[in-house]
Order: sequence, then C-alpha cells, then structure tokens
Amino acid sequence: MEGVGEIFKTGFNVTRLGEGDRVILSGEPIGSWSSLALFEANDVIKVPKRVPIEIAAGLVINTVTAHRMLTDFVELGPGTNVIQNGANSACGQNIIQLCKLWGLVSINIVRNRPNVEELKKQLIDLGANYVYTEEEFNALDEKDFFFTRPKLALNCVGGPLLTRMLKFMAPGATVVTYGGMSYKPITAPTTSFIFDDLTFKGFWLKRWNEDYRNKDKKESMMNELFELSAKGFLHAPAHKFVPFEKFKEALENTLSPKGLVGHKCILDFREMHAEQEKEWAKEREIRKAKEKEEIKRKGAIAKADLEKVMKERERQKTEEKDKGKK
Amino acid sequence: MEGVGEIFKTGFNVTRLGEGDRVILSGEPIGSWSSLALFEANDVIKVPKRVPIEIAAGLVINTVTAHRMLTDFVELGPGTNVIQNGANSACGQNIIQLCKLWGLVSINIVRNRPNVEELKKQLIDLGANYVYTEEEFNALDEKDFFFTRPKLALNCVGGPLLTRMLKFMAPGATVVTYGGMSYKPITAPTTSFIFDDLTFKGFWLKRWNEDYRNKDKKESMMNELFELSAKGFLHAPAHKFVPFEKFKEALENTLSPKGLVGHKCILDFREMHAEQEKEWAKEREIRKAKEKEEIKRKGAIAKADLEKVMKERERQKTEEKDKGKK
Repeated sequence: MEGVGEIFKTGFNVTRLGEGDRVILSGEPIGSWSSLALFEANDVIKVPKRVPIEIAAGLVINTVTAHRMLTDFVELGPGTNVIQNGANSACGQNIIQLCKLWGLVSINIVRNRPNVEELKKQLIDLGANYVYTEEEFNALDEKDFFFTRPKLALNCVGGPLLTRMLKFMAPGATVVTYGGMSYKPITAPTTSFIFDDLTFKGFWLKRWNEDYRNKDKKESMMNELFELSAKGFLHAPAHKFVPFEKFKEALENTLSPKGLVGHKCILDFREMHAEQEKEWAKEREIRKAKEKEEIKRKGAIAKADLEKVMKERERQKTEEKDKGKK
Repeated sequence: MEGVGEIFKTGFNVTRLGEGDRVILSGEPIGSWSSLALFEANDVIKVPKRVPIEIAAGLVINTVTAHRMLTDFVELGPGTNVIQNGANSACGQNIIQLCKLWGLVSINIVRNRPNVEELKKQLIDLGANYVYTEEEFNALDEKDFFFTRPKLALNCVGGPLLTRMLKFMAPGATVVTYGGMSYKPITAPTTSFIFDDLTFKGFWLKRWNEDYRNKDKKESMMNELFELSAKGFLHAPAHKFVPFEKFKEALENTLSPKGLVGHKCILDFREMHAEQEKEWAKEREIRKAKEKEEIKRKGAIAKADLEKVMKERERQKTEEKDKGKK
C-alpha cells in the first residue's frame, strides 16, 4: 500500500516540512492510497524532488525490502553470488539493481511466459547476471553448476523450486523468505541443515519498520536510496500509471493468479481531484492574501504602538531634564 | 562410534598421560570400537576415573551434542522453555538432564509404545517437565497451550511432527535440527519465517569438533561434563553392556526400524581379550623388571665412572701440592 504524496498544508509547529514537499510514510504505509489524508509530521519522510515520482511511490516497500535483505543477513563482499526466485517482481528488480550497484552477482529465476525472452532482456538490462526460467533452472545439473555457490538465497516462491535451489547453495548459506507466491510450504531435507549448515530466516518489512522507525539506520538507508534514485542508478520496476477511477483494472492485474502481466500498476490520484484542487488552490490564494493583510494590519498596529511608546519615553526624558534644571 | 578406552602404553615424550588412564577421542571418534588401537596423544582427552564408565562411553557424542545445542543457538535464561522430539534418545535424555540442571523447562515428545507410561516415568525421573506421545501432542490445542512458548526446538524427527511443533513456538524462536528419524523432510509454512520470525539451523557434531578441537571452549565444556558426571548430576541413558561377541544383538537393536527397544547397547571389549590382557600384564611386569634392572646397571656404571673421576681429581690435587712444596 505504498505511495508518495504532496503536502497541501502543515499544522502549527511543523517547521521541518512545508507546502508542496513530497513525502512517503515512515511507518506502516496505511492511508497512502487517498487523495487527501492527515498524518503526523513524524509519520512522514521527506523525499527530495529529484527522486522520480514513480520510484518514490514504490520505494518504501520494495526497494527497502531489497536493501534490507541484501544487508542484514549475510556479509556479502563484492563478487559474492546471490540467488533469487520471483526475480521479476518489483522487489526482485530492486534486488537485481542493488546487486549490480554493490558488485554482487545475481542469479535470477522467473516463471516461464509467452514473452520470456523480452523479460530476460529487460532484467539483464537492469543488471542481472543470469536469468533462468524455472524449467531451465530445474534442468541445471548440480555437478556442472558453474557459479561460485551463492551465500544468500532470497525466496518469495517456496515449494519445490526452493527445495531445488537448496542443492546449489554454498555451505553455511542463508535462505531468506519474504513471500510464498506458489502457495506451497517450504520443504528442505534434513541434510540441508545438518550437513550443509544452511540457515533459514524470514523478512517482514512491518517488523523491520517497527524496530527501526525514526532511527538513524533507517534514515541513512533512505538517504542512500534517494541519492541512488535521483542520480539515475535505481530505476522503477516496469510500471504503468492508472488513474484511480480505473482501480479495478489495476487490482485485476495484481490479483490475477497468473500474475504474468509484466508491469506494476501505479494508482494515480492526481487527476481525480483536479477540479477540487483548483478550488483548493484558489482557497489557498485567498488564505495567503488574508494572511498578508493580517500581517500588514498587525504591522500597522505595532507601528502605532511603537510610536506611542517612543512619544511617552520622549515626554519622560523632557520631564527629567526639567527636574534637573530646578 | 563413541567409546572410552584405557591406556596400555604411552610413547616417548608423552608426559600428560600415563598407563591406566581412561581416555576418549577428541576428534571424530573413529577407531574407538577396538580392543587395541594406537592414537596420537593429542587425539585423546583424559577422563577422570570418577566418571562412571557408562557415561564416559557416550559423553563425546550425545552429551556434547545436547550441551552445544542448548548453549550455542539461543540465549536461554532460567525458566525458558525448550521443546524436543525424539526425547528418549540418548541425546534427548541428556537434553532433559541439562535442562533440569540449568533451570530450563523441557517439553518432551516421544513415540507411542506398549510401555509408554514406564518410559514417561523414566524421563520425568530424569528431570523432564512434560512428556507427550506424538498423538497426545498433536491433540493439544494451540489456543490452550499452557506453557510459555518455547524459544528453542531441538529436532531429530522432522516430518509432520515438526511442522506441528512450529505452531507452538515463541516469535523469533530457533529450530535446531540434528537428525531425521522420520526419514521425512522438514516442512514449514512461509508464515513461520515471515510472520513468526523463526530461524532454522542445523547441528553437526563433526563440524563442531573440527572447529573447536583442542580449543579452550571444548576443554572447559568437557571439564564441566566430567564434573557433573562424577558428582552424579548426569546419568547415562538407559543402557545395557553387551560383550563384543554379541555385537549382532546390539546392532539389531540399533538398526531396528521400530527403535523402540528402550535402552542403548554399550559394546564391552573388556572380556574379549581377558586372556591376552593377562599376557600383556605379564609382559608389562617383565618389561618393568627389565627397565629396573637397566636403571640399576646404568646406575652402577655411573657410580664406577664417578669414582674414577674422583680418584683422578684426588691424584691431580696431590700432584699440585707436591709441586708447591718444591
């Protein structure tokens, strides 16, 4: 439910943020799918205008998830191999890009689909080192596996595909699960734990956000991601803006059991209130004009008061001088 | 393949160990099932005579495994709950006893069997807090679970029983697998990792021994276990000594797919070479007598040499005196 919004008005005492600033939610992103909503200043993070809107809209879930999963579980030196399934998901595309940026080798598994060569090219263009369909990966011979064995597996699929992936992992590697797209459980042979020394863990962004909300660790990560996005090193996943009126189309795309649409829909609330926004803009003008008037009026009163005070002081001085002469 | 042996003879330069000392192997315990074997002094650990032989024989695998699994994975303060399956295995019985000694609460699951009440009593007597058959455990309602949720699960069974156990774990708990008695894989729902934040790891004693061989950590643990055994705080699992001639009986017990025998067989090599040992004892006597003789002989030579030297010195002194008089 992530999204990016623009500040229409700030409350008293809010100095860190101003009208027209772009913000994303810092905690659980509930309420970001609205045309107008009220938040506490501490609940939002300011996004530099240089960050493209389509990246800002998805940053707080997919990019953060990718960043944390590549950072928090395994010490990954440059050249280390990372394997992931569901590699063309929004999160998967972020994983590919961060791997590329950080000098990691990404091995990516996607589901087969009619236009799979196009998808492969798209992921390679993003920075993927290897892309396999599930069938191609299943046909790989463990003995002939020509990569350094991955120290980290990122899993959003589960089921037999993950079980197969385990055979290729380095001893002592970690498997991080963040989704279950296959609707099948995670199954591993006993030997994966005893002899291969694998560790299975999970990642849940909600828990991470609760633990790290308003903490330096989160702030420095967000600044890093803003910087990378602003400079064009991080790209939004394949996407399409859909006006909110057509939200059904967007939801159908997302909920389709096949999920092979190939792009993410970004709900666009901008047009929705275009008329009302004009009114708001007018109101804002009137309000600003009134505020100006008020400031002028207060200024005039203050000036009059000041003149009064100065006159009184002058009078007192003259009086004292007269006393001195006597 | 663990076992305990007695030193028959030590090589030159070995001062730390002597004839008659009891020892266990420090590395992988291969070769301990022999009536006579040759080891490097660094490959054995001396066991105090106060440690009962039936404990010493099993200490190096089962007790060490239990100790490490309760120590290396989760910080367990007193009162913390630990759940295990296969609780009546030799390792399981050690886990129960160490939990009791360290103030942990053990929840134990065993397979049903004809004399199950007897087995339950035996485990309770060892210090188990709760003992369930698999059927009883499966019938427990998660909602009505009346324990503090366990932070550690020790698994040597796998299959559906482990999957069921996951429902009772505390958030953030760890599952350590050290066996696969059910011959079924480990299956967990995706939610166990994402929402319940569980960690799955494995323990393999061989790897631990390779990592910690001849290190202080291992030495201090062994001394702790020797002390506990010598003082009667640690008991050997239910067992029976079987003369080596009857090894088939012992193996059949162990390999029985039912594995419900209720006691561990300890192979006894002591009788096997009783006759030969008498011969060895004789040989040892002769050797010792010879050594004594040799020492005497060398002593006599040394005495003669010394007398010679003293005489010569006396002669020189007299000569010098004579010179002085001149």
